[in-house]
Amino acid sequence: MSLLVVGSIAFDSIETPDGSVDDALGGSASYFSVAASHFTKPRLVGVVGEDFPEEHRTLFASREIDTAGLVTKKGQTFRWKGRYHTDMNTRDTLEVHLNVFGEFKPELPDHFTDSSHIFLANSSPSTQLATLAQIKSPKLVLADTMDLWINIEKEPLLELLPKLDGLLLNDSEAQLLTGEKNLVRAGKAVLAMGPKFIILKKGEHGAMLFSGNEVCVFPAFPTDNVIDPTGAGDSFAGGILGYLASHDHDPIASLQRAMAYGTVVASMTVEGFGLDRLRQATRTEIDNRLVQYRNMLHIG
Amino acid sequence: MSLLVVGSIAFDSIETPDGSVDDALGGSASYFSVAASHFTKPRLVGVVGEDFPEEHRTLFASREIDTAGLVTKKGQTFRWKGRYHTDMNTRDTLEVHLNVFGEFKPELPDHFTDSSHIFLANSSPSTQLATLAQIKSPKLVLADTMDLWINIEKEPLLELLPKLDGLLLNDSEAQLLTGEKNLVRAGKAVLAMGPKFIILKKGEHGAMLFSGNEVCVFPAFPTDNVIDPTGAGDSFAGGILGYLASHDHDPIASLQRAMAYGTVVASMTVEGFGLDRLRQATRTEIDNRLVQYRNMLHIG
Repeated sequence: MSLLVVGSIAFDSIETPDGSVDDALGGSASYFSVAASHFTKPRLVGVVGEDFPEEHRTLFASREIDTAGLVTKKGQTFRWKGRYHTDMNTRDTLEVHLNVFGEFKPELPDHFTDSSHIFLANSSPSTQLATLAQIKSPKLVLADTMDLWINIEKEPLLELLPKLDGLLLNDSEAQLLTGEKNLVRAGKAVLAMGPKFIILKKGEHGAMLFSGNEVCVFPAFPTDNVIDPTGAGDSFAGGILGYLASHDHDPIASLQRAMAYGTVVASMTVEGFGLDRLRQATRTEIDNRLVQYRNMLHIG
Repeated sequence: MSLLVVGSIAFDSIETPDGSVDDALGGSASYFSVAASHFTKPRLVGVVGEDFPEEHRTLFASREIDTAGLVTKKGQTFRWKGRYHTDMNTRDTLEVHLNVFGEFKPELPDHFTDSSHIFLANSSPSTQLATLAQIKSPKLVLADTMDLWINIEKEPLLELLPKLDGLLLNDSEAQLLTGEKNLVRAGKAVLAMGPKFIILKKGEHGAMLFSGNEVCVFPAFPTDNVIDPTGAGDSFAGGILGYLASHDHDPIASLQRAMAYGTVVASMTVEGFGLDRLRQATRTEIDNRLVQYRNMLHIG
């Protein structure tokens, strides 16, 4: 079993009501792979510019992330700047510079094409389709998307959906895609578009899982120390797929536990700026938090 | 064991994106007592005007609610009119006519003063204090409050809090009362004001329970049939206290299961206008939904 992520690597500059950070290592592939590295040895495909420093490569190496698919191109690394509102659940994007990520056409190293578990992080559905076509026989494919693609690339998105096992999207995106305001209806309507399961993210309110006729709701793990929500969704996905790729059980039957792992991993991500907290987490800490989470949800 | 509710009885006129109803039986005491009647025989204290029809008294009687404390005063019953936004989670109040409820000073019938479980539905903290003083030896007192009292009657509210076992309030009210934006911190800060436990309501996102050092989050039971959210909070409280008053276990130790009962009862309330759905629910339906809810939250 082998887990592949194809996504962005970025320098994030983040302002929150209580602090800020400049040029922190971010991007979907960074958050996903560091999260998943607590469970398995992920393979990363992404692009950076010549300004990408050795220390970040060292971080990936220290987490045993296979960076054979990390390409360095002439130019600058993707940069994003954002500011969180006082509720820490909404934010404004202040600056986006796609730089080398703007023209990125993922090409998988040969030894990545046999990957069993795949995360197609947020990018255009056409790019996600082109990436998926390079995988020989995936066992489980999860893709993320965003409102932009629903608005400007809906056809390729609708073509992608039946090829996926799971789709990850947030509540407002599900509403936009389906026209349904009620989240249960919206989730079921996305499920009818082809994926085997839908994971609907609700930020600080947790996530919902739609699979077959089942609807499950997972509250966020409560933390009183929210420093920076950036990367919560991608590390949530990293916890889910990292767990699923780390054992041989039926993935659909294991989704509830995988969602719980994703939830506790995401709760750690938000407890520090960028990857500060997540990279320092240990598997023991994650497992202890999972026990707390399980007890919290045990009704008796 | 005996459960007492002191609160409002109202005629609600409600508009939603999909429908409307005029002069439906509503008010905190109505929702609470009908919800609790699925578990025990609640005692109701409230006031109505001369316009209060026999059919509503018949409904209370059919649910075995003891209405010895239901006073009829010269004048009109409390009326409320509201309109829900398309998200069904926020609303505008269009009209409020307190009528006879405006001057209501609850006086408990003698045989109500030995009640063991008490729900002080939303009203001014001074009124809640005066009501509480009439109870001989309550075993568990839960009170609701709202932003208005935090703004204009904060002193009486702070006097009330240490006399309570539990306080029920919504997320924005907890933030207003404590100045904390993070809900975990806000809940803990309210707990430090004196109650033994805090129930923090998050509307469609569920509720949080703070008790001792424990923080538990309960997602709302997912329903794709949200017709009218009015009364969800009061019937949630009715499910919680109805369950706790129906058996002899330690109430604090039973709170998790009680919160689960409150959650499934509230999910039924919102599936119809006013009390339409809740009054028709059966205990078997409620228990079946509790099993679904427990399975949904079982991580394995």
